[in-house]
Amino acid sequence: MSKTNEGNYFEDFQIGQEIIHATPLTVSGADQAFYTALYGSRFAVYSADTFAQSMGLPGAPLEDLLAFHVVFGKTVPDISLNAVANLGYAEGRFLQPVYPGDTLSASSEVIGLKENSNGKTGVVYVRSSGFNQHGEKVMEYTRWVMVNKRDQSAPAPTAFVPHLADAVSGNELVVPNGLHANNYEPARAGSSHFYEDYHIGEKISHVDGMTIEEAEHQMATRLFQNTAKVHFDQHAQKDSRFGRRLIYGGHVISLARALSFNGLGNACMMLAINGGRHVAPTFAGDTIYAWSEILDMHELDDDFGALRVRLVGLKNANPNDHLLKDSQDKYDSSVVLDFDYWALIPKG
Amino acid sequence: MSKTNEGNYFEDFQIGQEIIHATPLTVSGADQAFYTALYGSRFAVYSADTFAQSMGLPGAPLEDLLAFHVVFGKTVPDISLNAVANLGYAEGRFLQPVYPGDTLSASSEVIGLKENSNGKTGVVYVRSSGFNQHGEKVMEYTRWVMVNKRDQSAPAPTAFVPHLADAVSGNELVVPNGLHANNYEPARAGSSHFYEDYHIGEKISHVDGMTIEEAEHQMATRLFQNTAKVHFDQHAQKDSRFGRRLIYGGHVISLARALSFNGLGNACMMLAINGGRHVAPTFAGDTIYAWSEILDMHELDDDFGALRVRLVGLKNANPNDHLLKDSQDKYDSSVVLDFDYWALIPKG
Amino acid sequence: MSKTNEGNYFEDFQIGQEIIHATPLTVSGADQAFYTALYGSRFAVYSADTFAQSMGLPGAPLEDLLAFHVVFGKTVPDISLNAVANLGYAEGRFLQPVYPGDTLSASSEVIGLKENSNGKTGVVYVRSSGFNQHGEKVMEYTRWVMVNKRDQSAPAPTAFVPHLADAVSGNELVVPNGLHANNYEPARAGSSHFYEDYHIGEKISHVDGMTIEEAEHQMATRLFQNTAKVHFDQHAQKDSRFGRRLIYGGHVISLARALSFNGLGNACMMLAINGGRHVAPTFAGDTIYAWSEILDMHELDDDFGALRVRLVGLKNANPNDHLLKDSQDKYDSSVVLDFDYWALIPKG
Repeated sequence: MSKTNEGNYFEDFQIGQEIIHATPLTVSGADQAFYTALYGSRFAVYSADTFAQSMGLPGAPLEDLLAFHVVFGKTVPDISLNAVANLGYAEGRFLQPVYPGDTLSASSEVIGLKENSNGKTGVVYVRSSGFNQHGEKVMEYTRWVMVNKRDQSAPAPTAFVPHLADAVSGNELVVPNGLHANNYEPARAGSSHFYEDYHIGEKISHVDGMTIEEAEHQMATRLFQNTAKVHFDQHAQKDSRFGRRLIYGGHVISLARALSFNGLGNACMMLAINGGRHVAPTFAGDTIYAWSEILDMHELDDDFGALRVRLVGLKNANPNDHLLKDSQDKYDSSVVLDFDYWALIPKG
Repeated sequence: MSKTNEGNYFEDFQIGQEIIHATPLTVSGADQAFYTALYGSRFAVYSADTFAQSMGLPGAPLEDLLAFHVVFGKTVPDISLNAVANLGYAEGRFLQPVYPGDTLSASSEVIGLKENSNGKTGVVYVRSSGFNQHGEKVMEYTRWVMVNKRDQSAPAPTAFVPHLADAVSGNELVVPNGLHANNYEPARAGSSHFYEDYHIGEKISHVDGMTIEEAEHQMATRLFQNTAKVHFDQHAQKDSRFGRRLIYGGHVISLARALSFNGLGNACMMLAINGGRHVAPTFAGDTIYAWSEILDMHELDDDFGALRVRLVGLKNANPNDHLLKDSQDKYDSSVVLDFDYWALIPKG
Repeated sequence: MSKTNEGNYFEDFQIGQEIIHATPLTVSGADQAFYTALYGSRFAVYSADTFAQSMGLPGAPLEDLLAFHVVFGKTVPDISLNAVANLGYAEGRFLQPVYPGDTLSASSEVIGLKENSNGKTGVVYVRSSGFNQHGEKVMEYTRWVMVNKRDQSAPAPTAFVPHLADAVSGNELVVPNGLHANNYEPARAGSSHFYEDYHIGEKISHVDGMTIEEAEHQMATRLFQNTAKVHFDQHAQKDSRFGRRLIYGGHVISLARALSFNGLGNACMMLAINGGRHVAPTFAGDTIYAWSEILDMHELDDDFGALRVRLVGLKNANPNDHLLKDSQDKYDSSVVLDFDYWALIPKG
């Protein structure tokens, strides 16, 4: 028997199956420093202990998406090593902050299976959860991936496609314990725009662009202990469809989210991931831009509201044009990311 | 009203204006690890807790220039987002060490304004200060930048150009509290040359070279939360005068200073920045070399003296030749940096 | 007298000479985060405090090879600045774990000298040791390098070539104090294969490949404070034999070892380095693959055994083919590393 991990194929998954993922990771301020160095993040609550403490937290947590990438990375060897495509995300929630010194681990439950009509692949739906060292769930999300069959003659399982909400409902959002905005300093946060200053339908161009280098996305993806081969192996990729290393989709999410600081600087903590599509592949040398649309708003408590944001990532195209889809509902060729999330933002 | 930060234009500044800069940052050993990974710094007092403790400090502080870059980065969105050029530095002093766990924040006062005769731009002089979480000032410096006007028909302000010292006076230098050289180990520090071994006019070639990669300067500049667009956006820069991303001038200062270890290994802490010019732009692929000239010397106390050092950064040229200016006082084409600082060095 | 370090030449070394190396370094979780970002390491004991604690350690130590590179880096300015070639390693042992907050320092003893018949170079054998801040030896190893003579007319020293063991004997391996496997969780470790599952002569392809970028190996090598010029200076290297920056051999060792997780995931701690050859140079753009052969096995205690592993690093070639040498005992052109080490692995 081979000792190397060949990953799971479609017929290895069963509805209800629980998968414990390998390699717990103790995160630290170093991971956050990497996050800043890789994406240029400037949300103050994640940047400074003093600012986080002024909001009632014990210190600066790790950036929400950083924790997400770590948990996601752990699922890769079991869920998506033989994936053809990462089809979508839904029902993601951040349940409590992750702090330096916490150890993150992950597990997943298989909640849906549907073989494709070609008999070669199938779609696997998993509900993945991240835990800290106290066994507390810090996040959860559903994703579905198209996975190769090992043996095309293997019988198809009974198809089951789970019902997934279009978006996390506003009243399911979890405000971190003790968080308040009593002493919120907009000058230190870098934005003077609060919950009430935004309106549904508003579109915001985030102006700035970031060009991606191979060393950057490789270091990021390894930091997250994500093992998907396509991100690292140019010798193999040169013979692939694109001839290039593919950049981890989460790298583009984080770049777009960091760019969105310029316009959404107070929308500081991600509370939920409603959905997300990696519309087109991104390669080293591409410059990522982003624009956002406010899709919905929800009052959380006296201090905070939540903005539901569509975050659109573009490559090599001006975000002021708010490019998205054409009249046939086809994505513009510059769109690489269509991401839908809820963010917490103080009231004014 | 746009929610994105368009930065300040020349007519937005007024003499005496106080600007609180955004995004305090809690620094840690991770920032120092990045500094080592990016520049190869080896000054022992910043490298090892044990060495710093042998000199009377509680532990290894963060490298002086690292703290400088963090403070500088915070000023960019308010001061130099619309800058045409960073013209100079003066009167910079490091007032106390910055330690892992400290939170750095920054503010600036506008101390000079002078519109240029073309009516399109003006020079803004600011005095910037960095503070730790206790509100103690850890550094201060003046810089002046040429900034675009938003509206060329806006009236010129009354011109005021502050008087700036050619160099910080030796008796204004601040030796960190409690610092001594009783147990200084030159073998561990990596140099056997002390204060008395140097003389005014001495020139030292630092021999080694470092080639800069795009991923390196981008990661550095983002780590410092510096948002100047020209460093990151190749899609926009391809149509610029140089067709390339420009490297943050501070990246070159740090590379040159780290190279200067080879010859100035005991000149371990920067105490003041007397001046600095980014003589020519640097691009990825350039190899940086450095040489130094001792401009002045000053006795600090029984244990330490200070060397005033001219640090010259070259690209793609041999530092043994001490290239600087021609007979018409014009910089040699290889010179990218002409930097003037005071460094603390133990007596022998 | 020049103030720059020109390094030692062959005639500067004497048998019995003790060399204290410069620049102690306080290591931290940041160094481990870099190690993960650079190599994608996933050995659980180094990744998570919780996992390390379940094995009886106070927390996650720093990766063995990371500590090795730091100690090695310190020896470079004194031992190999004028080296023509790094010829080999032997008798390396890891004596106790290195933890975040420890300060590493290094010293070496010259144990052998032999001038080459050309009169231009000689071979220097040194026994190097790394220490923590308590003065405890954390590792030791021997390496030998070919070093230039400064003056070819200098007389040859009496030749002495030390006897070096082919491999560290199994009963000289040091299991970290208190380490046990009572609660070892293979699902979290990422491998279900234990000591008894391996056999001598077994060959394992590690499947995955990693393409190296210039920014990556430069950042790694500077993080280790390794000052060998050939890794950093493209301006000088363009006129060298290869026309390129050479990648630090240790970078390739770490990449190959990290790749070996896929097949040796429970062989979690390196206990000894028996030998190693950098068979051919590696350059940015090369994709590294690895395969291993089990050379020997040794029972350590009730909980653990040790595997003696030959780790072969390849560039741009399929590890499934187990390429090594041809019938004339000449290395295949794809082989860049032939490394021999002992690893600790739990019993099943």
